[in-house]
Amino acid sequence: MTKNELLSVLENKKFKALQEVLSCYNPVDIASLLSELDEKQLVVVFRMIKKDKAAEVFSYMDNDLRQVLIRSLAKQEITSIIDSMFADDAADLLGDMPANVVTLLLENVDKEQRADINHLLKYPDDSAGSIMTVEFIELHPDMTVREALDKIRRVGIDSETVYTCYVVNKHKLLGIVSAKDLMLNNDDIKISEIMKDNFISIKTTDDKEDAAKLFRKYGLIAIPTVDSEGCIVGIVTFDDAIDVLTEETTEDMQKMAAMEANDEPYLKTSVWMHARHRIVWLLVLMLSATVTGTIIANYENAFNAIPLLVAFIPMLTDTGGNCGSQSSTLIIRGLAVDELHFRDTFKIMWKEFRVALVVSLVLALANGLRILLMYRDISLALIVSLSLIGTIVIAKMAGCLLPIFAKLIKLDPAIMAAPLITTVVDTFSIIIYFNIASSILHL
Amino acid sequence: MTKNELLSVLENKKFKALQEVLSCYNPVDIASLLSELDEKQLVVVFRMIKKDKAAEVFSYMDNDLRQVLIRSLAKQEITSIIDSMFADDAADLLGDMPANVVTLLLENVDKEQRADINHLLKYPDDSAGSIMTVEFIELHPDMTVREALDKIRRVGIDSETVYTCYVVNKHKLLGIVSAKDLMLNNDDIKISEIMKDNFISIKTTDDKEDAAKLFRKYGLIAIPTVDSEGCIVGIVTFDDAIDVLTEETTEDMQKMAAMEANDEPYLKTSVWMHARHRIVWLLVLMLSATVTGTIIANYENAFNAIPLLVAFIPMLTDTGGNCGSQSSTLIIRGLAVDELHFRDTFKIMWKEFRVALVVSLVLALANGLRILLMYRDISLALIVSLSLIGTIVIAKMAGCLLPIFAKLIKLDPAIMAAPLITTVVDTFSIIIYFNIASSILHL
Repeated sequence: MTKNELLSVLENKKFKALQEVLSCYNPVDIASLLSELDEKQLVVVFRMIKKDKAAEVFSYMDNDLRQVLIRSLAKQEITSIIDSMFADDAADLLGDMPANVVTLLLENVDKEQRADINHLLKYPDDSAGSIMTVEFIELHPDMTVREALDKIRRVGIDSETVYTCYVVNKHKLLGIVSAKDLMLNNDDIKISEIMKDNFISIKTTDDKEDAAKLFRKYGLIAIPTVDSEGCIVGIVTFDDAIDVLTEETTEDMQKMAAMEANDEPYLKTSVWMHARHRIVWLLVLMLSATVTGTIIANYENAFNAIPLLVAFIPMLTDTGGNCGSQSSTLIIRGLAVDELHFRDTFKIMWKEFRVALVVSLVLALANGLRILLMYRDISLALIVSLSLIGTIVIAKMAGCLLPIFAKLIKLDPAIMAAPLITTVVDTFSIIIYFNIASSILHL
Repeated sequence: MTKNELLSVLENKKFKALQEVLSCYNPVDIASLLSELDEKQLVVVFRMIKKDKAAEVFSYMDNDLRQVLIRSLAKQEITSIIDSMFADDAADLLGDMPANVVTLLLENVDKEQRADINHLLKYPDDSAGSIMTVEFIELHPDMTVREALDKIRRVGIDSETVYTCYVVNKHKLLGIVSAKDLMLNNDDIKISEIMKDNFISIKTTDDKEDAAKLFRKYGLIAIPTVDSEGCIVGIVTFDDAIDVLTEETTEDMQKMAAMEANDEPYLKTSVWMHARHRIVWLLVLMLSATVTGTIIANYENAFNAIPLLVAFIPMLTDTGGNCGSQSSTLIIRGLAVDELHFRDTFKIMWKEFRVALVVSLVLALANGLRILLMYRDISLALIVSLSLIGTIVIAKMAGCLLPIFAKLIKLDPAIMAAPLITTVVDTFSIIIYFNIASSILHL
């Protein structure tokens, strides 16, 4: 259904038909359709969605729209939506609201749900606890498969995922049983016989990115979260893990482009916020470039003798920057997906050194020939080509070592990307260039 | 278990104990442990893993190690591993081998498995067909829940995922039923009554990246793949989708750093391959920088009059490059995660224009003050600051528009990143700089 079809249905007041269409639509699609409506239409259509689905649609909407609904709907309507949401989605929603709105909203929410939400709100933003859900199925080791299936039938509807059940004794997590195991085994087999006691789990205090990486590594649907005593307090599901991976990659890319990380959508971020996230690094890098400028000023006599020397500065610094950022990008990404480690440092250096030689020889040759053809000046061609080789080798070494070094001192490797590398390499390339020029031209 | 523990167990010939330890280890971890052994140890340990698990471990190993095993194990051992692998993993394996090895390996494989593998090998590398698995559970709409559960018990063990079943009639996909629905409903309810006939599906010919994005959007465990007639031919599961998303992001980052995409691990890629992937763009960008050089050469009289002008070139071009790459990174990533679209072009331009004004005024002020303090030269401060403002505005406009333009003409927006933007912006910034200098200094 497109926005226009929806509007024509609304105009003709075919509410019954609309209700039916909405009931077979995917909540993700309804949420994106609703985002195209104006406030009044939004409220009308939202009220037509059945209660359980409304909660789901609500959790896929963005914050602005949810604020509109919270303002426009009656208090009991909102309360019933929060009651029907998964506790982790509700906690996410409330985490983004001002404190007085949270108190107001939680006032009438079901007691158990309120306790769950409050519990989840306590975990820091980047912890595994903050992305876990507290709805999961607990089994006892002495249960039979039939009893387990009965329990799933009884409580399963409320659980975000029923495909892994958790075997606990006095809250201690003993093992896991997949729904597949339950379906494939006979009714009277004991859970303790089919449970896997060798399973992956995470701590609530673990970094959520590390948790998400486990999903990528092991291809799991859900991972149990335990507290410091090994008691299960929730589960993290693969869909939340995909979101975390996407978010972290976006943040990495932002840092790699000299910006502060920002998880708000681009268009929802104000001009001031955008400027604030970008300005600090720009200032730092701009002022660092002063060093290069000062060095250039010191070589005034060199480019007074041969003014053409100046013309090659951008080519030299840009190529250095590009070479360095190629290397740093490969290393930053390799570290982020756990493909490269600190122990590989020497292998990486050796590889980059050889790549630098190959690349720099080819580029130096191409550029030397071009200069010879254009200016018929052998010493100029030699100066530029030799400088290019030196610059590229240094750029590739800096590009691979700085991210590893950052990781070593517990900084985010992503900040050692193109912008910083370019600034560092600029200085070196200028020094190399004018020194080679001075010695070849006997200045 | 660490490598050293494993080696000591091997040395003391505690094979029984080793076999037991291996049986409770996760296949992913066994594969990574095996990668640390030498060829001889590898073969010894691999033979100790039970058959079904061995197939799983095999599919998590990298190509080099698999080649070692294929060379070292007896033919029937390899055949039985391929028989036990999921058809999609086996097809992936064979897709990476030389044709004569493939024929040799497939010769003795189970007939049905061979047909599945051959079928999968036909799909192009970037299609949804290439990442799908052909093992899934088909139900008939007239079956009851009990019959469905019986069928899952009968065939389920072989299926990569049993949590979504596909309701078909004469191969036509009519609907889907989740294992949750089967577990929560009474035994004698008809499948046709509980199946969802409004479901997400993909075509085998769809781009695998688009397929993977659906997992992110809808949070699904599996999506059915259908042919042009709507008949189901396989399913794509979320773990393969996570791999595709990770791979595509890595490729985007590589392109953004002026490299050709390469999905081989960094350390497994040869120096020549690394050089080849990097050299083309470097050459193109280096030769493009000639334009900037030629322009600089034309303004020789300007920097002969005030040699200090040259010292600000790197600061100016670097800042322009950084500003441009900030914008292009945000837009490229926004387009990749479907957060930004072509229809947002004007909103994006207007936002970037205002951000550029804020950012450039702050930077120009900071830099103007610095120059005034260092050189006590008002006209120099004015020249550099005004050039900075012009450069930043142009850089941010180019940074946001070029990726959108690339998408419009069906190029990958990722190529319009820092390196290309820097080269383009360099030219403009030099022109702006020397023009402002010439007119303020009346040259």
